[in-house]
Amino acid sequence: MNFKLCFRTTGTVLLILSALMVLPLLCGLIYHESIWNFAVTAALCAGLGILFRLIKPSSNELFAREGFFTVGISWTIMSLLGALPLFISGEIPDYTSSFFETVSGFTTTGSSILTDVESLSKCGAFWRMFTHWIGGMGMLVFMMAIQPKSRENSMHVMRAEVPGPSVGKLVPKISSTARILYLIYIGITLLETILLMLGGMSFYEAILHSFSTVGTGGFSTRGDAIAGFHSAYIEYVLAIFMLVCAINFNLYFLALTGRFKIAVKSEELHVFLALVLCVTLIIALGIVKIYGSFGEAFRIALFQVAAIISTTGFSNRDFLAWPGYTKSIIVMLMFIGGCAGSTGGGMKLSRVMIVVKGVYADLKEILSPRSVSPVRLEGKRIDKSSVNAAYTYFILYMLLILVTALLISVDGFDSQVNFSAALTAMSNVGPGLADIIGPMGNFAAFSSFSKVVLAFCMLFGRLEIYAMIILFSPKTWKSIKR
Amino acid sequence: MNFKLCFRTTGTVLLILSALMVLPLLCGLIYHESIWNFAVTAALCAGLGILFRLIKPSSNELFAREGFFTVGISWTIMSLLGALPLFISGEIPDYTSSFFETVSGFTTTGSSILTDVESLSKCGAFWRMFTHWIGGMGMLVFMMAIQPKSRENSMHVMRAEVPGPSVGKLVPKISSTARILYLIYIGITLLETILLMLGGMSFYEAILHSFSTVGTGGFSTRGDAIAGFHSAYIEYVLAIFMLVCAINFNLYFLALTGRFKIAVKSEELHVFLALVLCVTLIIALGIVKIYGSFGEAFRIALFQVAAIISTTGFSNRDFLAWPGYTKSIIVMLMFIGGCAGSTGGGMKLSRVMIVVKGVYADLKEILSPRSVSPVRLEGKRIDKSSVNAAYTYFILYMLLILVTALLISVDGFDSQVNFSAALTAMSNVGPGLADIIGPMGNFAAFSSFSKVVLAFCMLFGRLEIYAMIILFSPKTWKSIKR
Repeated sequence: MNFKLCFRTTGTVLLILSALMVLPLLCGLIYHESIWNFAVTAALCAGLGILFRLIKPSSNELFAREGFFTVGISWTIMSLLGALPLFISGEIPDYTSSFFETVSGFTTTGSSILTDVESLSKCGAFWRMFTHWIGGMGMLVFMMAIQPKSRENSMHVMRAEVPGPSVGKLVPKISSTARILYLIYIGITLLETILLMLGGMSFYEAILHSFSTVGTGGFSTRGDAIAGFHSAYIEYVLAIFMLVCAINFNLYFLALTGRFKIAVKSEELHVFLALVLCVTLIIALGIVKIYGSFGEAFRIALFQVAAIISTTGFSNRDFLAWPGYTKSIIVMLMFIGGCAGSTGGGMKLSRVMIVVKGVYADLKEILSPRSVSPVRLEGKRIDKSSVNAAYTYFILYMLLILVTALLISVDGFDSQVNFSAALTAMSNVGPGLADIIGPMGNFAAFSSFSKVVLAFCMLFGRLEIYAMIILFSPKTWKSIKR
Repeated sequence: MNFKLCFRTTGTVLLILSALMVLPLLCGLIYHESIWNFAVTAALCAGLGILFRLIKPSSNELFAREGFFTVGISWTIMSLLGALPLFISGEIPDYTSSFFETVSGFTTTGSSILTDVESLSKCGAFWRMFTHWIGGMGMLVFMMAIQPKSRENSMHVMRAEVPGPSVGKLVPKISSTARILYLIYIGITLLETILLMLGGMSFYEAILHSFSTVGTGGFSTRGDAIAGFHSAYIEYVLAIFMLVCAINFNLYFLALTGRFKIAVKSEELHVFLALVLCVTLIIALGIVKIYGSFGEAFRIALFQVAAIISTTGFSNRDFLAWPGYTKSIIVMLMFIGGCAGSTGGGMKLSRVMIVVKGVYADLKEILSPRSVSPVRLEGKRIDKSSVNAAYTYFILYMLLILVTALLISVDGFDSQVNFSAALTAMSNVGPGLADIIGPMGNFAAFSSFSKVVLAFCMLFGRLEIYAMIILFSPKTWKSIKR
């Protein structure tokens, strides 16, 4: 493997990370806060970045393995360094917790170990929620967007970072593709900021909640999260933007370039919207007794469905107090997650669709062996190997949730806590379906060991397994020695 | 599809069921109990059986579809009729509950809706636990064993009823294979009965608990189940026989016919024993504080591990009070289940092994695309389509658990209750990992709807999905009309 090229690319990532830290630093200056923690971390990132950039690769060859490794190692180092500001400032006293919080930020999970979010400094809170925005569309995609001449083989890097079963280029040049994605991303962020400000939020809170929504993260500046704003308008704005960001960004590109008809024909989009509408209605009917009017119940249900299926994980009400069946639906939505090519987590809707259609076709073949049933998605025939890849991903996803639940069960919590913590981490949602880690709880009670396990589980989920598995494979490290 | 042949075979099954009801009837006569319920049901089975036998199929052709359909329809009708005795006698006042209890018996699940097991009549309790024995090795395998000349194409029926990813004949003739399996089954039952009687059990209780163990069911004659016997000897005997019956019966055939060396070389056996030993030690270490001595903790852990991995579901202690990680292990064991070709449920160990090895091979291929990694099991290369079949099964298993949990969540229980009830039903274990349905609880609190859903979930699990899916496919019933 071409490790030199991988580490050199990681160097670029660290330089960008250093530059991005200027934003919380400026925020600190505006609010007259101590910004040494950001200055020191930015300098460290820059130093390490320059060191890594000094590595001269013997070739520029980059295959799938290198793509996965670059993304895996970049995200791990980014998280290790990104955890420093809140640790240095003492706002999170132990490094493992800060690492958990930062990984939860970058992976747009939104699980928190903080018991008092409102005691954070303005620049600390800015950084915490800015990590969602960075991680949402992806650091390496950002790198490609700003690099004047990205190598064409960096497609492997993009594939390793952008979620979904198949990642394609929007335009022939990869750097232009990355730039278009980021322009749409920035556009949505700004639009949401303005709409939230119209609802009465300050610019500071509006932009931070936009970071959190658009990256489908889930962190908030307030302890009681979205419920604290007491505004139906804000709940609707957030719900709609969560859904918008759980849809494949390629569709926005198609729509913006005049191919609106093609965009609205997307099969994944139809299933996504139908699913959201159905489960919202079903849940709304179940909670109408609790909240009095159907309008109120519908809004609360829509918000919660959007928060879960987009894997943002915002909560406006304590859904653990809702009827049993609504929680089973929430678990199902956590598995599914957003559409491919969105900032949402989970297994991705199109992958679930391939799995369900594939299993249906297999069933037909088992029951009438002479028939052949091809799997079709978006009008195209999916070949056997792609169906198989979706199966493998599904199974790995389940096994990783099981392994994570087993590992963290050393803390002595109940199996419901363990499994729902593992599921919410793997799907990058945020809250779990058990009291202590529920919408009104947090992850502070876990041991350092479990925090690290859950943090890596989030990375496995965000980077869709393979980029992280290559980091944990002894074979990789054996080959680096040579 | 050759429906006439399917229903004719079901007729034979009903005649056998009628004959088997003579046993509880005799039991009732011995204990001077009312036996009208059994007499009426036996007569009804015989009548229906004769009616079905009057159907003259135009051909004797039998393919995979017919095999699945015959097994699916036979088990459903068997359960509907088998539920009558306890319903007629009034021991279970509503028919849905009686159906649940009977399906739980035939599928060797062992979940019960009875709140007071000890109030059952002797012959009622006999029938309840005898259903475990009938369902363990399978009714249609029994039919093949006693039919003088089974058609060779009835292999499809055997494949549909015997658990595991691949079912082979032990000897060239299928009827001889079935006969050998039943002889081993009866031998083990008698041996266990004798050993339990040596431990102080009455003949009645010993044979009933043998039925329950050998079929890996889990019903007991006592409300506090095995804990009620206060005997370390009995716990060891039961633990060992649960493990024995969770091992592939083909290995016993090999051992009995002098091919002992081949039998002990089985890869699945090695993994099974290693797994049992490892998790027993891990759990024993975790509960040694609760039970004082390591010897005591080891015995209790071994019993519980054997009960769960064999999917018998006997409980000697309330494992819900154990440390959190032990419960996560128990959940994992519930998924895995026994070996292929055993009477145990779950996903079957060899299938899990194929899935894990397949995923490992896929991972290698994804990370280094030029390599080819064949999957090997028991020293033989497993072809792609068999690996794919194991994947499909794994995914269907998960989806069915999800669907069951969603359906029964209408009852308003917590998601932990719903998911663990669905898992324990699908894997044919018995107790769930939530208080009300735990080792000290029962399923009485569920609605009739949920009881029927769970009963069918058990049938899906016992018959390994396909035989039941064909029953639920509208296409099947459309073709029957023609």
